[in-house]
Amino acid sequence: MTVSVDQFKNYDGHAQRERPPEDPELTHVGISTPCGEYLRQFWHGIALSEELTDLPLEIRIMGEDLVLFRTSDGEIGLVHRHCAHRGASLKFGRVESDGIRCCYHGWKWGVNGALLDAGAEPKDSPLYGKVRQGAYPAIEYKGIIFAYMGPGDSVPEFPVYDTFEIPDTEMVPYTCTFPCNWLQVTENGIDPVHSMFLHTLVNGPQFFDTWGVLGDVDYFEGDISIYCTIARRVEDNIWMRVQENILPNITQSGAVHTADGKSIRYFGRNTFFRWCVPVDDTHTKVVAWANFGPRTDPIEGSSPENIEILEQGDVFDRPADELQRGPGDYEAMVGQGPIVVHAKENRATSDKGVSLFRRRLREDVRAMGQGRRPVQPTAFGAAPVPTWSGDTVLEIPAKGDIEDRQLRAQTFDQAIKIFSDAQALRADERDTFITERLKALEAAGGEAIHATT
Amino acid sequence: MTVSVDQFKNYDGHAQRERPPEDPELTHVGISTPCGEYLRQFWHGIALSEELTDLPLEIRIMGEDLVLFRTSDGEIGLVHRHCAHRGASLKFGRVESDGIRCCYHGWKWGVNGALLDAGAEPKDSPLYGKVRQGAYPAIEYKGIIFAYMGPGDSVPEFPVYDTFEIPDTEMVPYTCTFPCNWLQVTENGIDPVHSMFLHTLVNGPQFFDTWGVLGDVDYFEGDISIYCTIARRVEDNIWMRVQENILPNITQSGAVHTADGKSIRYFGRNTFFRWCVPVDDTHTKVVAWANFGPRTDPIEGSSPENIEILEQGDVFDRPADELQRGPGDYEAMVGQGPIVVHAKENRATSDKGVSLFRRRLREDVRAMGQGRRPVQPTAFGAAPVPTWSGDTVLEIPAKGDIEDRQLRAQTFDQAIKIFSDAQALRADERDTFITERLKALEAAGGEAIHATT
Amino acid sequence: MTVSVDQFKNYDGHAQRERPPEDPELTHVGISTPCGEYLRQFWHGIALSEELTDLPLEIRIMGEDLVLFRTSDGEIGLVHRHCAHRGASLKFGRVESDGIRCCYHGWKWGVNGALLDAGAEPKDSPLYGKVRQGAYPAIEYKGIIFAYMGPGDSVPEFPVYDTFEIPDTEMVPYTCTFPCNWLQVTENGIDPVHSMFLHTLVNGPQFFDTWGVLGDVDYFEGDISIYCTIARRVEDNIWMRVQENILPNITQSGAVHTADGKSIRYFGRNTFFRWCVPVDDTHTKVVAWANFGPRTDPIEGSSPENIEILEQGDVFDRPADELQRGPGDYEAMVGQGPIVVHAKENRATSDKGVSLFRRRLREDVRAMGQGRRPVQPTAFGAAPVPTWSGDTVLEIPAKGDIEDRQLRAQTFDQAIKIFSDAQALRADERDTFITERLKALEAAGGEAIHATT
Repeated sequence: MTVSVDQFKNYDGHAQRERPPEDPELTHVGISTPCGEYLRQFWHGIALSEELTDLPLEIRIMGEDLVLFRTSDGEIGLVHRHCAHRGASLKFGRVESDGIRCCYHGWKWGVNGALLDAGAEPKDSPLYGKVRQGAYPAIEYKGIIFAYMGPGDSVPEFPVYDTFEIPDTEMVPYTCTFPCNWLQVTENGIDPVHSMFLHTLVNGPQFFDTWGVLGDVDYFEGDISIYCTIARRVEDNIWMRVQENILPNITQSGAVHTADGKSIRYFGRNTFFRWCVPVDDTHTKVVAWANFGPRTDPIEGSSPENIEILEQGDVFDRPADELQRGPGDYEAMVGQGPIVVHAKENRATSDKGVSLFRRRLREDVRAMGQGRRPVQPTAFGAAPVPTWSGDTVLEIPAKGDIEDRQLRAQTFDQAIKIFSDAQALRADERDTFITERLKALEAAGGEAIHATT
Repeated sequence: MTVSVDQFKNYDGHAQRERPPEDPELTHVGISTPCGEYLRQFWHGIALSEELTDLPLEIRIMGEDLVLFRTSDGEIGLVHRHCAHRGASLKFGRVESDGIRCCYHGWKWGVNGALLDAGAEPKDSPLYGKVRQGAYPAIEYKGIIFAYMGPGDSVPEFPVYDTFEIPDTEMVPYTCTFPCNWLQVTENGIDPVHSMFLHTLVNGPQFFDTWGVLGDVDYFEGDISIYCTIARRVEDNIWMRVQENILPNITQSGAVHTADGKSIRYFGRNTFFRWCVPVDDTHTKVVAWANFGPRTDPIEGSSPENIEILEQGDVFDRPADELQRGPGDYEAMVGQGPIVVHAKENRATSDKGVSLFRRRLREDVRAMGQGRRPVQPTAFGAAPVPTWSGDTVLEIPAKGDIEDRQLRAQTFDQAIKIFSDAQALRADERDTFITERLKALEAAGGEAIHATT
Repeated sequence: MTVSVDQFKNYDGHAQRERPPEDPELTHVGISTPCGEYLRQFWHGIALSEELTDLPLEIRIMGEDLVLFRTSDGEIGLVHRHCAHRGASLKFGRVESDGIRCCYHGWKWGVNGALLDAGAEPKDSPLYGKVRQGAYPAIEYKGIIFAYMGPGDSVPEFPVYDTFEIPDTEMVPYTCTFPCNWLQVTENGIDPVHSMFLHTLVNGPQFFDTWGVLGDVDYFEGDISIYCTIARRVEDNIWMRVQENILPNITQSGAVHTADGKSIRYFGRNTFFRWCVPVDDTHTKVVAWANFGPRTDPIEGSSPENIEILEQGDVFDRPADELQRGPGDYEAMVGQGPIVVHAKENRATSDKGVSLFRRRLREDVRAMGQGRRPVQPTAFGAAPVPTWSGDTVLEIPAKGDIEDRQLRAQTFDQAIKIFSDAQALRADERDTFITERLKALEAAGGEAIHATT
């Protein structure tokens, strides 16, 4: 055999062999890291109510080893794992009505970290006024346990978003963990291009074949979110989807399993609302609600038992060769490695959302470093916090006198204007307002209409 | 839902979030570390005879990878794992009558590390006078294999303690391994407060409910030991227990399973004698004898098959939720983490023994660093080495004219004086002397008596 | 018990306790290490054809994470594991007729790393001329996949050796992986002394009891190889074996399972031809052919299904105590540790081959560091590349008038001269020439003969 080496010119594996380090400013989340301290400014969903039995639960969040428990009085405690006395794990503590008692020497701590009983120490010990167990604010809400791990002198208001209170909606909490950095998981949610390829064209349709057409994708930045808008022509309808990444790590989509642009829908809302919470630099816990109801997904179409299908279009646990033949989000994100190396990427126009998100994240992280704390979602007064994500499908046929792409763009601009106009309204009034205005927009064939408020 | 953030003031998890490093001076045991070199000054029990078959045994002690073997002539060899010729593991060596032969190129080493056969090298090779396999002194005694890993030019005498030779006592060797630092395991043995809480009050009585009362605890320091004394009133009896931590890593208790202060006992001895030997910085091998006999525990009460019950009151291998509901020493010590961080502790009055032990250990480690080698247990001439641990129960009812706590203290002082007076006697004479004097003390109702020697 | 400490004098485990680091110059193989860059100058067998199905194969070579694939058109691609777009693993890529398409955003790369399709990017994107996936030259040949991972501007000719084309020989590809450094595995092949001890004297004969006699061993250095010659007297025969280590990591032996010196053989060849390819610093993949045929081993004696027997005389996967009682090459090499520490060795005369190999390797690595690239096996013009390894057995009885060791040496010198004289001949002519000359040498009773070419 003779092998001509000429065929190998231009192979540049060797030239590209170096692997620079990851970007610590955006990916490292441990104690006292820039991004870690930034993320600690926010409330995060950290566990499901159903994960918490009458026993303490070991949990690790942003590189901190913690124990979560619910007192027999129903209060939630989230404390440093190691007892402030001699370091035994409070995982083995006994939960009582008002706190948790360390197994080793019997010291008891309240949910706020106060020393309630110092075991064999005198009852008048000065320890009682002095020693505290490290504790974080935590609450339980609609099946999810939330925590705030930032400075205790500035606990932000717990933000209730509009999509926590969609009428006639069943909210099913779910969780899953990915062995990779939090940013990879978060960025997956701001990237409609992967839906086109991963979920449709490369591996066959995992959701709908309509996803195989990218649609008109655009991004813009709001006070607390990066929005991704996707407009599509489906027969005589214009289908407008808004995806929303609420900073720093929340994803809201449209109706994953229902919306295909064929049925008319006015201000449909999101299938899921999810936090991508760093466990540590290389593990991420997703904590989310799946929404089932007339404005999201019908429960018949999606099963609350089958959350992985909802998450990524297929189950996680499959034989190795099946995973290779039909990878899902898990394989795509985890396959990037424990922490993806940004310096090895070649981002392009279709990565605009990811680039925008990283730029904003970096600004906010650096602002924190200069003492400027990030804006909280509740800072603008409206409660619940208004968000825009979801699907609107209007019957607006293509016209002879205007490029259809231009018609879709102009219609979407009008819809965004409607969302924006409604920003200050109360939740029920807001829904009515938006719906009526969208109907008027539809009736006007996508033309600008006069505001009625 | 509205959450008031006021409820979260004083939560200081964030303020306490940093984790300083462990204390290397007391916890790091590897080659050429201060504590490692200090620990290497002593003989340690490192394995059970029954662990050693006709095959070499891989063993790791203080971070050194070793191979332990017994020649067919019955000599014990403890050598560096990698053959001094080309590094093959002597785990795969062939044990012969006078040494171990490496599988790879046939070099044979005696138990003292001498090169007995250099394989394919000439019989008159200069290697024979020059090359040695790293070997440590090792002996086999009453079912346990002991080793000394310090400098070869100053091998200390092997210390035989009085409690190795208690008449009518069955000594059952046992071993178990804990994935945590040696100091955590050792400190557990100098801490009677954990017996009160871990073994009794928090998790229900794992031994006796009498342990739920702490008793009068005190500590004092001897030439080679830290003693912990515990006095309790049990009906008309005064129950005096001495626990003893022989430096650096030996624990002797009282009679764990029998003594409850209800039966009269004169100079009862210890249920176990155990070494807490570092495997490396984060693993510890306990090698011990359990003692069964009239002066320790009766074999009916404790089972030699059930050593874990003896060690910690319950078995190690239980379902996860059972471990959480009824943790034992394993969960308490291992739950502190691979190496407990002293800088995060809040030690208090009830940790006096631990603090005392650490102070003494640090002094001895630092003295070593200045060239002063630690005192050996055999340094005081008496053989076997006299120790004090065990239980004495005297019938001395409470009196009207003296605070009972004072009566107990004064009685214990007298008992300690008796032990001290007997220090230089031969073992059998000593037992008789102590027993008679304790009886006299009992007859005198705890008052000082005149010495009869 | 009294233990005399006198028995322990000269134990020097403590004096020898330090473990210096390994030798990075010869053992570290990662990106931009001296030895790594040197090894990257050569073609290596990296996988078997049968390992590569229609799915991409994750593979790790010299610390680089790669993906190997075969297009449906039959071309072999070896590329960096992470997609040059956003880092998803090409393990989950879809293999197409002309390349591999990333699952995440659909970018497709040719086997040469060219960007063939940039997914959602415009068809006239400037990316097409600019972005490449890191790719390495790779070919498939006789059931083995070969790769070159050095600089793309100087791909060496793929070397075909004479022993790839032995007439009437069945070549059976095989592979196995050892969790230790590449140098340990390579050195095993240059060390006939281990055959004497590991495979024969220490553990009983794993191959032939004749191996228990070392023979006359010598080494010499050629342009591309280190040769080891072994001469033995077997009754009236002189058995001459040449083992050959082609730099940097190829081993060719004689006929492992057949040759015992009892049957006459003229220029018999090697049982295996194997590459010891670093997976990373602490793992090595052997990729090899076993040869079955009249000039190597008959297939009746060795089974292609039982490659481990061929490799080391026994199977790898045995119960722990069986491994200890009868260790093979796996236990010997892996037992040396992940990377053997040369500074702890005591090499001797019988390690001459290993020392010679390391010296030559170090010279070549250092030359590379000074810009001098190593000589390639094809540099001398002859194709296929002539090699010498194998067995020759001539009937030359011992003589009265000459020391037999001297007779063997002189006969071997003549044989080597014959090999050398034949160096420039074409393969078939060369075999005939060598065979005839060896017969003449035999007829002359080992005396020098006149060249007939």
